[in-house]
Amino acid sequence: MSNAIQVQADFNAPPATRILAEFVATHPSKGWTDEVEHEAHRTFLNWLGCAVGAAQHESVESSLGAIREFQPAPQASILGRKDRVDMGGAALINGISSHTFDFDDTHLKTVIHPAGPVASAILALGEHTQVNGRQMIDALVLGIDVACRVGNCMYPDHYHRGWHITGSTGMLGSAAACSRLMGLDAQKTTMALGIASSQPVGMREQFGTMTKPFHPGGAARAGQLSALLAKHGFTASPKALEAGRGFIQTVSTKADWSEIDRELGKSFEISLNTYKPFACGIVIHPAIDACAQLRAQGVAADDVDRIELRVHPLVLELTGKKTPKDGLEGKFSVYHGCAVGLIFGQAGEGEYADNIVNRADVVALRGKVNATTDLSIDEASVDVTAILKNGKQVHIFIKHAIGSVENPMTDSNLEQKFTGLTEPIIGKEKTRQLISALWNLGKAADLKQILSLSQPD
Amino acid sequence: MSNAIQVQADFNAPPATRILAEFVATHPSKGWTDEVEHEAHRTFLNWLGCAVGAAQHESVESSLGAIREFQPAPQASILGRKDRVDMGGAALINGISSHTFDFDDTHLKTVIHPAGPVASAILALGEHTQVNGRQMIDALVLGIDVACRVGNCMYPDHYHRGWHITGSTGMLGSAAACSRLMGLDAQKTTMALGIASSQPVGMREQFGTMTKPFHPGGAARAGQLSALLAKHGFTASPKALEAGRGFIQTVSTKADWSEIDRELGKSFEISLNTYKPFACGIVIHPAIDACAQLRAQGVAADDVDRIELRVHPLVLELTGKKTPKDGLEGKFSVYHGCAVGLIFGQAGEGEYADNIVNRADVVALRGKVNATTDLSIDEASVDVTAILKNGKQVHIFIKHAIGSVENPMTDSNLEQKFTGLTEPIIGKEKTRQLISALWNLGKAADLKQILSLSQPD
Repeated sequence: MSNAIQVQADFNAPPATRILAEFVATHPSKGWTDEVEHEAHRTFLNWLGCAVGAAQHESVESSLGAIREFQPAPQASILGRKDRVDMGGAALINGISSHTFDFDDTHLKTVIHPAGPVASAILALGEHTQVNGRQMIDALVLGIDVACRVGNCMYPDHYHRGWHITGSTGMLGSAAACSRLMGLDAQKTTMALGIASSQPVGMREQFGTMTKPFHPGGAARAGQLSALLAKHGFTASPKALEAGRGFIQTVSTKADWSEIDRELGKSFEISLNTYKPFACGIVIHPAIDACAQLRAQGVAADDVDRIELRVHPLVLELTGKKTPKDGLEGKFSVYHGCAVGLIFGQAGEGEYADNIVNRADVVALRGKVNATTDLSIDEASVDVTAILKNGKQVHIFIKHAIGSVENPMTDSNLEQKFTGLTEPIIGKEKTRQLISALWNLGKAADLKQILSLSQPD
Repeated sequence: MSNAIQVQADFNAPPATRILAEFVATHPSKGWTDEVEHEAHRTFLNWLGCAVGAAQHESVESSLGAIREFQPAPQASILGRKDRVDMGGAALINGISSHTFDFDDTHLKTVIHPAGPVASAILALGEHTQVNGRQMIDALVLGIDVACRVGNCMYPDHYHRGWHITGSTGMLGSAAACSRLMGLDAQKTTMALGIASSQPVGMREQFGTMTKPFHPGGAARAGQLSALLAKHGFTASPKALEAGRGFIQTVSTKADWSEIDRELGKSFEISLNTYKPFACGIVIHPAIDACAQLRAQGVAADDVDRIELRVHPLVLELTGKKTPKDGLEGKFSVYHGCAVGLIFGQAGEGEYADNIVNRADVVALRGKVNATTDLSIDEASVDVTAILKNGKQVHIFIKHAIGSVENPMTDSNLEQKFTGLTEPIIGKEKTRQLISALWNLGKAADLKQILSLSQPD
């Protein structure tokens, strides 16, 4: 496989570092529409649910073990646990947990998962420095804007080259957001972005290992430290992003500088954020959505003689595992996706537990799904027909699955997803209260309620 | 300026990650010649002197201020200070201080400064975990070998692309050395290298700012954390270095895999390490060396009518500042280099203090230096003639300046350099004892004496 590239150092780039720093330092609080404000709350809620949900995963146990070696001060909370560590360690671990199920938000234009590096950094810093909810939302929107704008500038070449773009732009989002949260001026924010730009995190080869979720966590921690260094007078190049030997031109063969300041302060990248309804690769989502809709229309697993699925060939190429043996294999099985979609109406992390993948009714229904490829069906679409034992047929065509930009998850969908993630960790009542608190984060006088509700009893 | 490059992903690379991990985990203690063993001591001594010497620099004050925000546990010492922070913070700050004067060691084949990332990480980890000197030297030699071998594999393309290769290979050296120091097995060391490979630190655009010395410090800290994560079961791709979307092919357009294991365990990259005698760019070194030799031959500044210097044109292009105004400008003045070489016989950080650059006798002697370019003189050479007031002439030709691979600093030279750096911080007596302790590090039962002598009273 060849990825021929060509670099031509550009010494006439605009002052991207200063432009972004000035923006982050001076843009008015809540200087955006209600829609942007609401999307920020959706992003934060979805992110926090993912982090709480994975709190007992071995990636969290293991990284917490390493951080404990530093005998950290109890400055900040680990979501979904009673543990407290220093704010750098908390940024790292919450970043890891939020991406562990690969269930967090996606800026589809760049495949950046933007909340991980940004929210993890500012929640830990904000807890220790006692900020309010307004400051958090402001920092979140601006930090995500910085990471995604730099991502837009470099995508797709940077990603194709091998970088896991979430961690290799996330340190900039984190540095920007932490600078804003601490009220650094434009000059110090420039330094923070500069220091952060020397610390991109993550290669795509790590996909499938714990180091993949390490990337957003590591980026959160790196950006947070960068902002703290800048606060204390540490210096960096004010042209760190755009210079010929600076970050962007060193790690990318494409640099579309117009992405840095196009509609800056008017249009916000967080508006383009999406949320995964299902805990598996996006290519299975239309099929799961279709089967969940069959269920909503009254089709029960017992009624089904067989299910005929027509999909783009890529779907079977990537997820054609007919008889998955465990949860991980289940994630690569469109057949399993259909079965849990019809039986449970959802496909969260719980529906990918080993015991569900091997449960008799799930195995039986999986066996009744026939998939055929059809190049006339788009990758984002699916055509499903349930043939019932009584001879009736129910047909569903999905053009854009739930969770796509065209068909976003509703707030209620997000709450349902959140509940599926958090209830096993913090219980029903805390989950209910936490959802309500998160929708009101922008008005919260402090972060105490959210942090306390995110802990198990 | 163009740096056209071409990437062709190579999916047939050797298992570099496992090869290096196996080597680090299993190579016998002191499994090398006495020459290698001695070079390791020279490397550590030189590194520690640089770190102590810069202990009061603002880059250290500032980074210490940031690390204190984490309320770190007092696990490890900051060299040249009484402060103690957690071992990650100590790795960071000692890495920063050791590179602040740009006076540390150089593996000239790759321009890697290898000790910074490796020694900083293991001294902090080793202090906290109470290792002995033998373990330290073993970890140092093996960690430097890993960083420099990966550097050899990628140099020069990786460097030309914009990476500050010290920090973008140093995290591997640090992870390897810390893994060795903790006795991790080959599998866990593979994971440590994998986790570290997702965290290269540093772009060349940062040269001239504090973020340049941040690079070895950040790499030390990243590698140390990676080893601790691996110890606690964190996973990474076992092909993280060599895979098509792995570290090396993502950050370099050249991958000479033979460099990974050529003479592995027989020939050690630390043997090629060099030490700067003078605290300025290497291109001025021959001229300073020549003038110091004039002084050694009895030529005094007062006797001099003029000094005729013949140099390669590059020397004046890079360091042609005739009337420097302060220490920083002095570093770009071959004239100042000649003046302090003749007056002091050395050009350490002290000879680049602002007050020395502006001292009357220095200014006067600078004015007596005439430089002419001569393409027949190599960049590494210089031809100097002192014309004395009494009409006599003294001629010196330097083929290879002191500190080059061909003309290395003697142990006594290194001690003199060390003394110039550490005496202002820890005083004469501690400096004398510390030098002796450092030559015997490999036999030390613990690190206590070295750490205590590295502190000011």
